[in-house]
Amino acid sequence: MTEQPSYRFAPAFEAPSGSAIRELFKYLSQPGMISFAGGYPPPALFDQAGLAAAAERALREAPIDCLQYAATEGLPMLREQLQALMARRGCPVALDELMVTTGSQQGLDLLIKVLLSPGDRVLVERPTYPATLQALRLAGCALAGVATDAQGLSTEALAEQLAGQPRGHFRLLYCVPSFANPTGACLPLARRLALLALAAEHDFLIVEDDPYGALRFRGEALPSLFALQNQVPGAQGRVVHLSSLSKVVAPGLRVGWMVAPLPVRQRCTIAKQTVDLCTSPWAQRIAAEYLAAGALEQHLPALVAGYRAKAERMLAGLAGLAEHLEVAPPEGGMFVWGRCRHGVQAREVFERAVEHNVLFVPGAAFFGDQPDPSSLRLSFAAPGLEAIDQGLERLRAAFA
Amino acid sequence: MTEQPSYRFAPAFEAPSGSAIRELFKYLSQPGMISFAGGYPPPALFDQAGLAAAAERALREAPIDCLQYAATEGLPMLREQLQALMARRGCPVALDELMVTTGSQQGLDLLIKVLLSPGDRVLVERPTYPATLQALRLAGCALAGVATDAQGLSTEALAEQLAGQPRGHFRLLYCVPSFANPTGACLPLARRLALLALAAEHDFLIVEDDPYGALRFRGEALPSLFALQNQVPGAQGRVVHLSSLSKVVAPGLRVGWMVAPLPVRQRCTIAKQTVDLCTSPWAQRIAAEYLAAGALEQHLPALVAGYRAKAERMLAGLAGLAEHLEVAPPEGGMFVWGRCRHGVQAREVFERAVEHNVLFVPGAAFFGDQPDPSSLRLSFAAPGLEAIDQGLERLRAAFA
Repeated sequence: MTEQPSYRFAPAFEAPSGSAIRELFKYLSQPGMISFAGGYPPPALFDQAGLAAAAERALREAPIDCLQYAATEGLPMLREQLQALMARRGCPVALDELMVTTGSQQGLDLLIKVLLSPGDRVLVERPTYPATLQALRLAGCALAGVATDAQGLSTEALAEQLAGQPRGHFRLLYCVPSFANPTGACLPLARRLALLALAAEHDFLIVEDDPYGALRFRGEALPSLFALQNQVPGAQGRVVHLSSLSKVVAPGLRVGWMVAPLPVRQRCTIAKQTVDLCTSPWAQRIAAEYLAAGALEQHLPALVAGYRAKAERMLAGLAGLAEHLEVAPPEGGMFVWGRCRHGVQAREVFERAVEHNVLFVPGAAFFGDQPDPSSLRLSFAAPGLEAIDQGLERLRAAFA
Repeated sequence: MTEQPSYRFAPAFEAPSGSAIRELFKYLSQPGMISFAGGYPPPALFDQAGLAAAAERALREAPIDCLQYAATEGLPMLREQLQALMARRGCPVALDELMVTTGSQQGLDLLIKVLLSPGDRVLVERPTYPATLQALRLAGCALAGVATDAQGLSTEALAEQLAGQPRGHFRLLYCVPSFANPTGACLPLARRLALLALAAEHDFLIVEDDPYGALRFRGEALPSLFALQNQVPGAQGRVVHLSSLSKVVAPGLRVGWMVAPLPVRQRCTIAKQTVDLCTSPWAQRIAAEYLAAGALEQHLPALVAGYRAKAERMLAGLAGLAEHLEVAPPEGGMFVWGRCRHGVQAREVFERAVEHNVLFVPGAAFFGDQPDPSSLRLSFAAPGLEAIDQGLERLRAAFA
């Protein structure tokens, strides 16, 4: 007679909920479904030829680099290429402050391990990236949402939240200042500077997650928080910058990076020794070869043009839904954030949309607290232009 | 005037110590150094041709699988190949109980997140794999070492430790039953069964880390703890099995896997969503193509023969050091564990060995408590046969 043991879990894992967005995946197999739900880059915009050439060079020129363990901080060749990439983005950084991570998702996981304890207070945009909410919740952190508007995080609202709190009340603030997931908003320069000043005044670290910044298809590039920190008295050393090749090269590499003040970076390396020892050296070497060949610079204009065309097509189509849906046109990235008018709930529209064979993500998944039930996220990244038209037609039918 | 903020870290990271073995790396650049210190597989035994063919097929036949995100549990093709590999190893497992991890190191990290809380008591072999000690320490667990001898973990000593403790006193036991790092010991069948019985009697989970089991070069294969669990009343569902392609294919893939009871596996998937989303799909697809082609089975005999030749060469040479060093000949894996005779301390021998241009790892790094100062670890994996002879000559000089 066998008896299954009753398993005991860490408190956060006694009854954990998985990703709400993953729950939508079951609808993807419905025949003819058009999805505005996913946040995946479109395969048609992958630089397959450039990546195949990089992969061929990597294995031919450096088979042992590809196949053997690497230093936990990353392959030297890739770190140098990422340093050069940061410099091109207006962020000269010391090599010692940069480490490779297994996607920028791992950067956040390492920072949580190193910086946070259960009960620590953490500020997040409301709404924000759900995997960050989940990671912080599982770590037992106390989340505090900061209001956002069409220009991203409201530094006025943040200043009010901070007023009267003792210095150091919040340990860190997580944000996606450029083309945020889910809002698509891009934080203006004045707010970037104001945010840095608040970090200095109230003694918190800023984690700047920047996977989308290079995907700007309208307007002028803005400096990252990391690049601006030295312009704000007291803000120096208060920004950790996370980025990734997932959205500009390919998610399948799982190559991201972190730039952090040395005491933070060193501890993240120690944490990474127990987490995965090193990011796949084979993937690292392929990425390094791709960057060293200048392939990212060559490919980026076509990639951005592809996103621009899709975004414009979606925004044009959404103009026809203006009576139902209020949207903020993004200047880059992969997402359009909308709010249903007339008190309509996104969840109800979602049920009808599934019947009409079109998917989006109801906005509630992106809120740590006080969800806005009217909100929803549309991604224009995956579908082709015709599918965008057709999907919006179906969405109109769902609203009707 | 700029002022660096004073960073606040999680308690475990206020003053963390890095890997003691990594500290030895600085000596590796000494000209002419022969190293028995590392645990890296030798590049000469990588199946470069087979891996190059697998990589070429992966990108040609499934470019989107390689470049896009994958399900958190792993690419279906790889999970099926790993299921088949487990079956060949005498472990039929349900696909649903198997997930891909970023090296087996990540398997342990996920299990710690899901199963353990600060203060939880965990049993480990004394000595054991240092990255496990570090991961458990950083998680705030209370470690209890179990004595080992030339046959691995002493189940008699463990039974004595458990006697009188309430059921459930220890949450889990971590072990490397086959060709352990650092001892090279292989747990005999009777002890495997005794260990499972103790887990059932005292209500703890066993984490069986098995990166080396396929590298047996002498003696008869033994079933894994995972394979044996159904033979011991009450032990079913008490074993989590971790393994990896790092030691049999290539570390550069960072492809490992976990087999765990469904409630554990599901929670580890939720944890992985916040850790790295998925293991590099490109590396996963290459691994899947390699396994699907039967390349591992074709290559394994040459790999094992390579390790056998190196181990025999080292054991033959160590016979000449018998007056200084007592060793236990391993039947597989990469390591020989030794104890200096006559009260000599391994650390002192190490200082002289560095002067003689030969490296090993003093044993203290492998103990959670009560280090044996006479102990040391020698790896025969990396150096060639001539270098093994020469290195042992130098080691003899260091002892003299």
